[in-house]
Amino acid sequence: MLTFIGLGLYDERSVTVEGRGAIRSADRVFAEFYTSRLVGADVAGLEAAFDVDVEVRNREGVERDPEPVLAAAADGDAVFVTAGDTMISTTHADLRLRAESRGIDTRVIHGVTAQSAASSLTGLQNYRFGKAVTLPFPYAHGGDGVPESVRETLDANRERGLHTLVYLDIKVGIGPTGRDPDHEEYMTADRAAALLADGWRDVLGVVVARAGSPAPVVAADRLSALADREFGDPLHMLLIPGDLHHVEAEALVGFADAPESILDE
Amino acid sequence: MLTFIGLGLYDERSVTVEGRGAIRSADRVFAEFYTSRLVGADVAGLEAAFDVDVEVRNREGVERDPEPVLAAAADGDAVFVTAGDTMISTTHADLRLRAESRGIDTRVIHGVTAQSAASSLTGLQNYRFGKAVTLPFPYAHGGDGVPESVRETLDANRERGLHTLVYLDIKVGIGPTGRDPDHEEYMTADRAAALLADGWRDVLGVVVARAGSPAPVVAADRLSALADREFGDPLHMLLIPGDLHHVEAEALVGFADAPESILDE
Repeated sequence: MLTFIGLGLYDERSVTVEGRGAIRSADRVFAEFYTSRLVGADVAGLEAAFDVDVEVRNREGVERDPEPVLAAAADGDAVFVTAGDTMISTTHADLRLRAESRGIDTRVIHGVTAQSAASSLTGLQNYRFGKAVTLPFPYAHGGDGVPESVRETLDANRERGLHTLVYLDIKVGIGPTGRDPDHEEYMTADRAAALLADGWRDVLGVVVARAGSPAPVVAADRLSALADREFGDPLHMLLIPGDLHHVEAEALVGFADAPESILDE
Repeated sequence: MLTFIGLGLYDERSVTVEGRGAIRSADRVFAEFYTSRLVGADVAGLEAAFDVDVEVRNREGVERDPEPVLAAAADGDAVFVTAGDTMISTTHADLRLRAESRGIDTRVIHGVTAQSAASSLTGLQNYRFGKAVTLPFPYAHGGDGVPESVRETLDANRERGLHTLVYLDIKVGIGPTGRDPDHEEYMTADRAAALLADGWRDVLGVVVARAGSPAPVVAADRLSALADREFGDPLHMLLIPGDLHHVEAEALVGFADAPESILDE
């Protein structure tokens, strides 16, 4: 049996009660933290909280050498854990498909995602988001600003009045010069706001920092103004609102200290 | 202090460890189940699991008479719980704004959402969803098929190659003839598939039934074929895929028993 368990957003208490139970009773616990990570807990903290050994796999260890995980799942109860929800993007679909094709039962125990927290913390309604994008570090796409595909998605959502969730690049194990096991870099929201203000449009943006933590920061202002602020430890996200319903505008003023002028628009 | 806590999708073990701790230590626990509900637990089950009294409020009791909740939050630690994530839509933003304007501290402890589970269970990538829609019961919108706004959103997403999450109508406390405290009705995915196949297009759809439960059902086929099947107890969702990446198509075949012909498209 192979159970994919999302740890949620922040620390060892962000997992569901069901997920924690499954981790505690597993024969083997595998984890990866290259797609995202828990900011409020390290591996030793997780091991102590769950009373298990956690075997951390890097990208090669998951994608090119999945055999140890599959063998453990064929022999007993193996769990594979990540921050957020493990299956929310296609990253680990391949591992699940391989397991199923070998006759290994699989299951998903969901975790809280950044996507959910982004609307929940800002008051921007989850219904009214268009396609999401990731803003890469300039060195990661070979340009020096905002990739055209990002600008196109932002524009297409705005044309339809929809909000955009901008995920900010995470580089773990890969740096400006290629593979680097020690590299760990998280794009900050102020840097993202500066990139978008210069390379796209200087519109209203909403920063969400440390979603899921006891003290998340939510701040709305023009991108050029957000670019001059600092939002502390990772992880950060940036939201670009589309048309605002009145309750959404009130929420941005009330929860994110947005300029009150947005209530008149 | 007023803490909004999402219970997640299925039963008393779907809440996060942090959320359960906050419920257990609260002075007063308020809940509403008219926007969604836990299929695997009733109020008595939650009270037993959390060792608290749960005060269930109906829509009027939340929206028109929030005073008891606010008074409890002004005097001590009150929590307000719902299925999913409490603040994911704007429904309860007003309650949070009222609390903040009275100087009551507020906090959100996130829960797993249907939106996250929908991509996670199907392998459809969360990045590639456009705007979501809700398909209402025909009696709820005065028509006899699919509202034009729903068709427009589905078409606009398809034009951009994006997936659509179709939430299915829930009517609790309101029935075909208006307010009715005993009314409880959940649109099933087969009915939704029939409505869309007749009133929009007969394309590939993906049913997700009982997301977050130990045995969710995920099934992909043409809408007219899904309309002839049954998917058991609520809650159900329906997804309309846009363009499929190869891994997404493989996931739909592997996890949802989609026709293998989609691999060639």
